[in-house]
Amino acid sequence: MEEFEFISKIKPKRKHHRTVKVGIGDDAAVYEPNKAMNQVVCVDTMVEDVHFLKEKSSPRDIGYKALAVNISDIAAMGAMPLYYLVSIAIPNSWNEEELFEIFAGMEELATQYQMDLLGGDTVATGNKLVITVTVIGEVEANVSLLRSKAKDGDVVFVTGTLGDSSAGLALLLDNISIDNTYIRDTLLMRHKRPVPQVRAGRLLAKLDRASLNDISDGLASELHEIAEASQVGIVLNRIDVPISSELESVADKFDITKWVLYGGEDYQLVGTISLESWDELIRLCNDSNIKMTKIGYVDKNLRGVFSKKDDQLIPINKLGFNHFR
Amino acid sequence: MEEFEFISKIKPKRKHHRTVKVGIGDDAAVYEPNKAMNQVVCVDTMVEDVHFLKEKSSPRDIGYKALAVNISDIAAMGAMPLYYLVSIAIPNSWNEEELFEIFAGMEELATQYQMDLLGGDTVATGNKLVITVTVIGEVEANVSLLRSKAKDGDVVFVTGTLGDSSAGLALLLDNISIDNTYIRDTLLMRHKRPVPQVRAGRLLAKLDRASLNDISDGLASELHEIAEASQVGIVLNRIDVPISSELESVADKFDITKWVLYGGEDYQLVGTISLESWDELIRLCNDSNIKMTKIGYVDKNLRGVFSKKDDQLIPINKLGFNHFR
Repeated sequence: MEEFEFISKIKPKRKHHRTVKVGIGDDAAVYEPNKAMNQVVCVDTMVEDVHFLKEKSSPRDIGYKALAVNISDIAAMGAMPLYYLVSIAIPNSWNEEELFEIFAGMEELATQYQMDLLGGDTVATGNKLVITVTVIGEVEANVSLLRSKAKDGDVVFVTGTLGDSSAGLALLLDNISIDNTYIRDTLLMRHKRPVPQVRAGRLLAKLDRASLNDISDGLASELHEIAEASQVGIVLNRIDVPISSELESVADKFDITKWVLYGGEDYQLVGTISLESWDELIRLCNDSNIKMTKIGYVDKNLRGVFSKKDDQLIPINKLGFNHFR
Repeated sequence: MEEFEFISKIKPKRKHHRTVKVGIGDDAAVYEPNKAMNQVVCVDTMVEDVHFLKEKSSPRDIGYKALAVNISDIAAMGAMPLYYLVSIAIPNSWNEEELFEIFAGMEELATQYQMDLLGGDTVATGNKLVITVTVIGEVEANVSLLRSKAKDGDVVFVTGTLGDSSAGLALLLDNISIDNTYIRDTLLMRHKRPVPQVRAGRLLAKLDRASLNDISDGLASELHEIAEASQVGIVLNRIDVPISSELESVADKFDITKWVLYGGEDYQLVGTISLESWDELIRLCNDSNIKMTKIGYVDKNLRGVFSKKDDQLIPINKLGFNHFR
């Protein structure tokens, strides 16, 4: 199938945003941004056998996740995702039906966020499929939830629960086994279909100031990024880090600490805000049914990330990263 | 080297546009578009052994071209390129120095157009390097140089000269040899370092209406796209298609017609405008020292692309595409 025929098949039937003047199919797409908003853009690539295994995930799940990890970056800026572009380098080992399924998985998620597909490219390659997604969003001009914004005395917070994605990965790779089907499927799904925290990001955008990261490389690694960019230290109350009931139920069988602190790919948001803003954030999150947990504090006299135990500070290193190679 | 260290090395030392609020290095980049302009965005991927050969092109040339082909898409919309994002999937066979050279090649071209690098991703992959570049530009809100805008009686035009890139590719692959060093190097460079026609695109944006494509897949293929999207026929005066003096000088040795009509990767602009606009376009191009040539006309009673010879119309098929596989 030639590229134009392929594009005509993946072309969305309708557009979500009237700001799209020219969609997929010409040399480039054209859109007209909302005038009161800044534009936010990011790109992320997923590679076969590095970020996903063909025999372990459906093409639909792979597509879903390729878009989800990018939306998560947009969420970590407090922005709304609006548009996406997709480029796929395709080896012979993938057939057309599988490629359409990848796009269908992305469209599933895109529809949830009313995102428009603006363009892309499909090319042949060697032995590994490579999916690159670009996402463009927008955020109010006065908002900047950067990792450099942490300040002394800030509350360190995290959305949702951590460690499920890593447990799911361990299941996927048959490194562990869990008999309970519901728990197994739930953990697998948390790995295959992470939920980008756009709503939480939008709430944080309403506050005066916040530092923010999405958790792609593990909690410890993301906290180190914030500490380094903000030139502060972060103290973590290990016991406060939230985990799901599913993970809790297998905590006696496995060493879940490494999943929770270093596992990564949870795509929750972690960041810091002032003590004064914390009450407002909790109220906003309760109203919106978003799980938000205080897990530590910022100390300007420290550098790095620490775990507090019996008033002792134990350094936590970066580690993180759970790719297949 | 870890990703953050890598990013710090490729991070531009200064920004060209004050509209960049957050550049490369956070979850996503933030920029604030000029309010009177539409945003234009495109993405294109280059794959080792499909779009370039490591042993035949320097990493710097490969980087240059990866960005150039994207700028060319922006030019084909009459827009100004402003920002770019780069994602690279890297096999073990490429070392760090070569990767920096790829970015250096892009920066060379980016500096010419005062483009800011807004972000990117670097990941490991199997056996082939994959470079994906996203470019964002802007164009006046009333301009839309789409391939669907051709009308009956339009002049068909092309910028620059055609066929050099394909001749360069034939040289690169040792399919042909040329003794004259200057001619050989010129043709090779036209293949390795195509010049995106941004200035010509900007002139076309000043006219009432134009259909426009950049020539990535060959003149015949691009004309077919315009004819199809506009539901018209295009008649080409084969003899008027401009070729360089370098290609002319070897025309007796090789069959240059296939390079000129089907070769592709010239990244010139081809399109159609009304007869009334043609005089104005020629005047604008003369003032700006841009080579612009009339090569045919649009006929609403035809469908497809034809070559005219002795008042006979001979259909020209699409073909095109000169990838290595």
